[in-house]
Amino acid sequence: MKPWTPHNPDFADAVRESFTRQSMMATLGAEIARLAPGEVDLAAPFAPQFGQQNGFWHAGALASLADSANGYAAFTLAPAGTDVLSVEFKINLLAPAVGDRFVACGRVVRPGRTLTVCHADVFAEATAGGAAARTLVATMSSTLIVRSKPTNS
Amino acid sequence: MKPWTPHNPDFADAVRESFTRQSMMATLGAEIARLAPGEVDLAAPFAPQFGQQNGFWHAGALASLADSANGYAAFTLAPAGTDVLSVEFKINLLAPAVGDRFVACGRVVRPGRTLTVCHADVFAEATAGGAAARTLVATMSSTLIVRSKPTNS
Amino acid sequence: MKPWTPHNPDFADAVRESFTRQSMMATLGAEIARLAPGEVDLAAPFAPQFGQQNGFWHAGALASLADSANGYAAFTLAPAGTDVLSVEFKINLLAPAVGDRFVACGRVVRPGRTLTVCHADVFAEATAGGAAARTLVATMSSTLIVRSKPTNS
Amino acid sequence: MKPWTPHNPDFADAVRESFTRQSMMATLGAEIARLAPGEVDLAAPFAPQFGQQNGFWHAGALASLADSANGYAAFTLAPAGTDVLSVEFKINLLAPAVGDRFVACGRVVRPGRTLTVCHADVFAEATAGGAAARTLVATMSSTLIVRSKPTNS
Repeated sequence: MKPWTPHNPDFADAVRESFTRQSMMATLGAEIARLAPGEVDLAAPFAPQFGQQNGFWHAGALASLADSANGYAAFTLAPAGTDVLSVEFKINLLAPAVGDRFVACGRVVRPGRTLTVCHADVFAEATAGGAAARTLVATMSSTLIVRSKPTNS
Repeated sequence: MKPWTPHNPDFADAVRESFTRQSMMATLGAEIARLAPGEVDLAAPFAPQFGQQNGFWHAGALASLADSANGYAAFTLAPAGTDVLSVEFKINLLAPAVGDRFVACGRVVRPGRTLTVCHADVFAEATAGGAAARTLVATMSSTLIVRSKPTNS
Repeated sequence: MKPWTPHNPDFADAVRESFTRQSMMATLGAEIARLAPGEVDLAAPFAPQFGQQNGFWHAGALASLADSANGYAAFTLAPAGTDVLSVEFKINLLAPAVGDRFVACGRVVRPGRTLTVCHADVFAEATAGGAAARTLVATMSSTLIVRSKPTNS
Repeated sequence: MKPWTPHNPDFADAVRESFTRQSMMATLGAEIARLAPGEVDLAAPFAPQFGQQNGFWHAGALASLADSANGYAAFTLAPAGTDVLSVEFKINLLAPAVGDRFVACGRVVRPGRTLTVCHADVFAEATAGGAAARTLVATMSSTLIVRSKPTNS
């Protein structure tokens, strides 16, 4: 990945302010684990209320975390006074989402004035007997659109 | 869509039993609104704790509902004693997810012994002054894999 | 699908003119089989030079036909003086691409001023002993962007 | 990417033999530029007969090259006596496909007994006045299925 140059010098504050408004992230217990130009990692603990039929994390929970990681990665490079919305994403589920904690690493692949493309890797982290393991459980590619923010919102 | 013939005469019970184990569906307040061979509609009320930064439903919440609708549509045609897991899905977000209720309509496009492909339309329903409106807010295509169920789960 | 209203009264001529410039369509021997607001079907005969390792049509040949069908479906609803480009597409391959002729049916799912989403079904047609058969071999979802056409092209 | 261990010691010969049977690759003038466990790069010169309406390479031509690169990357890790088929792929188009030569770099993200997931980057290479430039024009994620090869083919 290239060292991207942000247009908005206050990109980190802009990301943090928007993140606090995403109630889905609070519901998942997610936090920002890394924040740099074009790069946002979001982490959430495993919690039993977001499971699928076998008790693994639901693909939609993984997708929520990865979609927001990609959205905020794009947002770090967006001009001040804009908003970023997901146009589409595709997720490949690679392994059962089992673990203590999930981390979605969103990265800008190509920034654009109108459309930005991002890629996220989602890892499951497990700690057993003092040893930690990290498994790639999903990858996501996303298209995001940069929009002028409505003045009254 | 063709009138699919289910392999498992108890497909409806199998879907309902599995659905009660998906804690994510309970968390979203989702219920089964329609259940037929190759067709499952899931509905959930709008709730403020699954929002994105503007208060719309998070794309991940829509994706959760649509992923489960497609999964259970595939499951209606799976043999008894099997489980269905998502391999991948792609969602296109067409309009802001605003409304009183969301309905994901999952349909089998092509069933298979190993892989099944499904398509879901997600609608936002709003009732204002007695009149109801229905807006297509997302479409999803999914690949699902049919697996023998582990005997001890 | 809704009865879409085209912005450009000369949409059919615009599609036909652009289609003649797509050398890939001529290479595949493709022709426009149907052309209506929001709907374009493209058909191409089977030809052995576009095969994969087993002699079936290569997924990239199917994707070429479906990508153009979706692009021209979007173009029927675009204003005069614009061009349409593919942002992304996803294709699910459902059955071996065997047959005498392939038909990609592109349909607008949601038109937009900036982005349009389309869906295509791709069928293989075979004629054997006087009877014709039609098999769904692929489905594609696409995002397309409408751009002002450069004045010098 | 990890250093993958191939199951088939003759994986390179198996890839080359299958590649010669893909008539689409010959039609595009493609060749194998790199071949290692889990990694296949395919290169093709620009040629005017695979264009879209503005003379750029058609998205379907890029998709053909990237689909085969991912397929052969998966095939390097498949057991002897098997075949690999594409289940689905998604391509994001990042920049106009202009250049002298296109290179699709397919990489295995997760190999599996039944399903393998790959990722490809597609670059356009241009040489002007002695200087060479390389632009990322597309990325693709693919799901591929490993199948026992029919004995009579």
